[in-house]
Amino acid sequence: MKKYMKNAIEIAKKGVRKGNSPFGACIVKGKTVIAVAHNTVLKRKDATDHAEINAIHKACKKLRNHELRGCTIYSTTEPCPMCFSAIHWAKIDKIVFGTKIADVKKLGFSELTISAGKMKKLGRSKVKVRGDYMRKKNLELLKMWEKKKGKTY
Amino acid sequence: MKKYMKNAIEIAKKGVRKGNSPFGACIVKGKTVIAVAHNTVLKRKDATDHAEINAIHKACKKLRNHELRGCTIYSTTEPCPMCFSAIHWAKIDKIVFGTKIADVKKLGFSELTISAGKMKKLGRSKVKVRGDYMRKKNLELLKMWEKKKGKTY
Repeated sequence: MKKYMKNAIEIAKKGVRKGNSPFGACIVKGKTVIAVAHNTVLKRKDATDHAEINAIHKACKKLRNHELRGCTIYSTTEPCPMCFSAIHWAKIDKIVFGTKIADVKKLGFSELTISAGKMKKLGRSKVKVRGDYMRKKNLELLKMWEKKKGKTY
Repeated sequence: MKKYMKNAIEIAKKGVRKGNSPFGACIVKGKTVIAVAHNTVLKRKDATDHAEINAIHKACKKLRNHELRGCTIYSTTEPCPMCFSAIHWAKIDKIVFGTKIADVKKLGFSELTISAGKMKKLGRSKVKVRGDYMRKKNLELLKMWEKKKGKTY
């Protein structure tokens, strides 16, 4: 499992170097990586271009299916309610995330303060959720972004 | 205001005729229509292609900005949590919707049962929300879709 989260962290770092926000995602089916993507909101100037949305878009295209049953998504940070809901719609089986929404809210991101766990409970979604995965490595990613000069949100 | 919701209904009907789900959205800034879009999940095989996401994508591209301040979005049905959150991220001022999430859940759509009002409250979002707008016309749209043979979700 570690290598899939490492993929998500690596693509997020690539995104940060290009001037994007520090978020990455990796979608896996069985042992096959289907899609990796970083956040592109700032560089592509699109509010919906979160890492998870970009990864789902790529995965749907690759598998030619709007349903991604049997897949797991690795997110460097807990998916926001937009991404959680997109994961629900895509019928992805499981979410594994590193840092929490609360961690990035502290950094200034205007998150809707609703955790993935709360979204799952309120929306009665079947998606499995596991947090705090490789938290240390994911915190390092956020620190890398924090140190960057001229960053925007 | 009516003509903007009519735009959303018309594009949704166009989408239904092409085999898509019965949802449309129209984004307006001042008196200018910035973008209209229908749901394309089934035809483009992408789980994230809800009408509102498609409309935000088009509007961001048109205005070359990931923030759509000063805009109002007209949705034929209450935005799902994915779309509500996308609207929050895009910093759209106001949502005006017709039918409710509860109406389309009855039709078989696997909605996360969280209303836009609840999302706003829980997420402490500043976006204004007005529902039940032109409800009758929007219910007619859902009925048009219900009568269609061979529909999928």
